[in-house]
Amino acid sequence: MSKNHEIQKEIQIGIIGYGTVGSGVVEVLEKNNDEIARRTGYQVKIKTVARRNWTGFDCKKLNFHCTENPREIVDDPEISVVLELIGGEEPARSLIIQAMKNSKHIITANKALIAECGEELFQIAKEQGVSLSYEAAVAGGIPVIKVLREAMSGNKIDRVAGIINGTCNFILSEMQEKKADFQEVLHQAQELGYAEADPSFDIDGIDAAHKLTILASLAFGVPLQFSKVLVEGIRNISAEDIENAAELGFVIRHLGIARRRENGIELRTHPTLINEDAMLARVSGVMNAVQIEGNAVGKTLYYGSGAGKLPTASAVVADLIDTIRDLDDDRASRIAPLGYSEIAYDTLSKHNELSPLAPDEFKSAFYLRLGVKDEVGTLAQITKILADNDISIASILQKTELDTDGIVPLIILTDPVIEKNMNLAVAAIENLPQTVGKLQKIRVGKF
Amino acid sequence: MSKNHEIQKEIQIGIIGYGTVGSGVVEVLEKNNDEIARRTGYQVKIKTVARRNWTGFDCKKLNFHCTENPREIVDDPEISVVLELIGGEEPARSLIIQAMKNSKHIITANKALIAECGEELFQIAKEQGVSLSYEAAVAGGIPVIKVLREAMSGNKIDRVAGIINGTCNFILSEMQEKKADFQEVLHQAQELGYAEADPSFDIDGIDAAHKLTILASLAFGVPLQFSKVLVEGIRNISAEDIENAAELGFVIRHLGIARRRENGIELRTHPTLINEDAMLARVSGVMNAVQIEGNAVGKTLYYGSGAGKLPTASAVVADLIDTIRDLDDDRASRIAPLGYSEIAYDTLSKHNELSPLAPDEFKSAFYLRLGVKDEVGTLAQITKILADNDISIASILQKTELDTDGIVPLIILTDPVIEKNMNLAVAAIENLPQTVGKLQKIRVGKF
Repeated sequence: MSKNHEIQKEIQIGIIGYGTVGSGVVEVLEKNNDEIARRTGYQVKIKTVARRNWTGFDCKKLNFHCTENPREIVDDPEISVVLELIGGEEPARSLIIQAMKNSKHIITANKALIAECGEELFQIAKEQGVSLSYEAAVAGGIPVIKVLREAMSGNKIDRVAGIINGTCNFILSEMQEKKADFQEVLHQAQELGYAEADPSFDIDGIDAAHKLTILASLAFGVPLQFSKVLVEGIRNISAEDIENAAELGFVIRHLGIARRRENGIELRTHPTLINEDAMLARVSGVMNAVQIEGNAVGKTLYYGSGAGKLPTASAVVADLIDTIRDLDDDRASRIAPLGYSEIAYDTLSKHNELSPLAPDEFKSAFYLRLGVKDEVGTLAQITKILADNDISIASILQKTELDTDGIVPLIILTDPVIEKNMNLAVAAIENLPQTVGKLQKIRVGKF
Repeated sequence: MSKNHEIQKEIQIGIIGYGTVGSGVVEVLEKNNDEIARRTGYQVKIKTVARRNWTGFDCKKLNFHCTENPREIVDDPEISVVLELIGGEEPARSLIIQAMKNSKHIITANKALIAECGEELFQIAKEQGVSLSYEAAVAGGIPVIKVLREAMSGNKIDRVAGIINGTCNFILSEMQEKKADFQEVLHQAQELGYAEADPSFDIDGIDAAHKLTILASLAFGVPLQFSKVLVEGIRNISAEDIENAAELGFVIRHLGIARRRENGIELRTHPTLINEDAMLARVSGVMNAVQIEGNAVGKTLYYGSGAGKLPTASAVVADLIDTIRDLDDDRASRIAPLGYSEIAYDTLSKHNELSPLAPDEFKSAFYLRLGVKDEVGTLAQITKILADNDISIASILQKTELDTDGIVPLIILTDPVIEKNMNLAVAAIENLPQTVGKLQKIRVGKF
C-alpha cells in the first residue's frame, strides 16, 4: 500500500439511463464523492452517461461524456462497472449481457428484468466472473435484499410481507384519511406524480408481484417464479370497505407476501386487512416497509422510501460500493446473486416443501362484505354455508340501516381457511336468493 | 468444484460462553443446520464449547466437546472461527487477542469490549489478517451494523437515533401504559427478567452509550470515543412527566443519538420526548428500533428484538455466515471493521467537523417542568430569563390546580437551543424566589 494516502485508487463507471434514477445517482456520486472515497479508498469517476437523446441538456456543463449510444459504455475497456438504469426488458437485457461478456460488473434497478430474466442473467454473470447487483429493484432505499441475503442468513425465514408499491399505499392511505373513493384518489395520485398516466402496472399489483418474486427467492432459496404469484390489485377496494375495516380495528394495505407452509410456499400480492396496532399499519403515503420473520430473530421491520430519485440512488450507490469493496479480490462476489449456494439449487428437487402452492391452496383469513335482503333466516343460511365449507367466523358486523332497495350490508371476518373452501362458499352464498350482487372478499393478515 | 454437491465443505468453530447467547447460538446452528448449508455450501460443525463450569449439564448428550478451559478453543488448530460470548472486558479481551494471533476469525456480541477496546482489537485483526465481527453488539437481531457499514454507504449520514436499550424502553412504555411510577415498574421489570438485580448499567444509560459509540463510528468514520458520549439515564423521569408529554402529543423514550452538526458531532444518550406520530414512538416494551437518516435515502427505520437468546443468536450466526462467505478469498474481510477505509482515519485531522462536541455545545429542544408559586409576574420573569438566553418558547402548559402548598406546575416546550444557554437559564430560573425545587428538563427529539 502506498504511504501517501492522498493518492487514491480510481474506478471508472458508465451509466445507461439519465432519467429520474440515473440523474439521482449522478447527484449522489457527486455530492457524496468525498464520503464515498473515505469509505472505500476509491475515487469513483463517472466516465460516460448514455441517454436516448440529450436534447435540452448542455452536455458541456456535465462532468462526464454524454452519449446516445450505450455501446460506447458496454464496450469501453476503461469502464469496470456499468449501471443499467433505463428499466424495461429490452434493450436493458441485451446491454447488460454484452457488458458482462466484456467483463464488466453490473448494477441495475430493474425489478421487471430481474424477476423475469434474472436466472439467465445470473448464469451469464457466473460464467463471466462478474457481479450483478440489484438492491434498488425492491423497496428503493430500504436495503431489504441485503438484509435477506446476509443479515437474516442464520434464520429459516417464515414469512416476508411488505408494502412494496408506493402508488397502492398512497391511494389506500389517502382513501382512509380523506374517506375518499378510489377513482378520486387515483386522479389525485396522478396529478402528484405518484401514479402513471396508465396506472395499471402499479394498481393491478404487477409491480409488487415482480418485487415479491425476488424477495421469495432470497427468503427461501427457490428460483425466480413470477408466474406462480397470485396477483391482485386495489381497483375494487371501496371507501366502504376501508370504513368497515376501521370499525373492526383494521386498516387496508396492499401487500406482497411470501410465506412458508408445510407443503409449499405461498406467493401473493393483494389488498390485506392489517390490525391497526401493527407497525405495518402505520406506513402511510408513498412509504414502503417490509416485515421479515425468521425462526431465530422473530419479527423485524424495515421502513423507508420505496421510490424516488435519491432514495433509489442510495441503493444503487450502495451496490456500487459493495462492488468496489469486492474489487481487490479474485472472486466476482462473495455471495451468490440470490443468496443461496449452488447446492441449494441442485438439491431443490428434494425440497417439496418449497414448491409454490396454487392460490387455491393458500390459507387466509377473510373479510367478507355482501348485501343481503332483510329477511328472516338469511344469516342462518349464510353461516351454514360457511360451516359446511369448514370456515369458522371470527366476527360479524351487521349494519342496521337499510339502503334504498331494502338491502343490508353484512360484514363477516373469518378465521384462516384454505382458499378453495372459501371460493366454494362464496359461490354458494352468491347463489342464495337473499343475497344481492357480488360478494366483496379481502384477505386479512396477522402481523 | 466437485460434481457431487452432496459432499459439502466443513468448517469447525469454537464457542466461548454457554449462557443465554451461547446456548442460543448452538440452538440456531443445530436447528437451522440444513438451511445454513443451503445458503453457504458449508456444514458448520461446533467442535468445542467452553463454559466456566458445566455442573448441572450432561455433556455426553451435547453434540460437541465441553471444556472449562477456553484455551482449548483459542489454541486448537482445527478451529477456524471463535465465537466470544462471555461478555465483559477480561478474560474476553485476552482470549480474543490470543485467538487472533492463532489466525482465527472472531465473532463477538460484546458491546462494552468493542466500545472500549475496539481500536486495539481491530488493529490486531488487521495485522493478523483475520476478521472481527460484532453485529450482535448493537440492537440484537436488528442488522444495524451491516446497514450502516454497507447499505447506507452511499449516504452522508445526518443522524442515527435509536431505542437501543430494551430495559429502559420497557420501563418507560410500561410507565406510560399503566400510569405507574419508575420504582414500581423497575421492580416489575426485575421480576420479569428485563432488568438486572443491579440495573444501573441499563437504566443509567451506560449500555446505550456503549452501543451509540459503535453506531457513531460506523456513521461518521470516526474513532470509537465512549468518553465523549453524554450519558443520562431514566431514573428521574416521573409519571407526571409522561402524562404532561402525552398532553402535548409526545411520548418519552430513552434514545441514543449521534448527530452531525456543522462544527462537530453530538454523541448523546438520554430520555427524549418524541412526537407520538413518529414510527419510533410506536416502539414499546423490550423492542428496539434505530432510525438512520442519510442525505440521499432520507429517513429509514429498522425494528426488531434488541436482545434475547435467539434474536441475538441470529446476529451472531449472520456474522458467522459472512465470515464463511469470505473464506474462499485471500482477504480477511472485504470491509474494514468500522466501515471506513484507512484513508478516512489517516486524514481525520482535516475533518474538524467530525470532532465530538462537548455536551454544552449540543443543540436541543427542551421540555421544562417546574413548580411555581401562584403569584403575579412569575411567568413574565421566567420568559424574560429564557429570552435573555436566546431561548424561544414553542408552547406553555400552565396547570391551574394548586397542590397543597400553593404550588402550580408549569410546563414549557422550547425551540432548539444551545445547551449552554439552557443551563444558564435553568440556573437563573431555579434562583427565582417564586420557583420551588429543581427544574425538570428533558430533551425533545424531532423524528
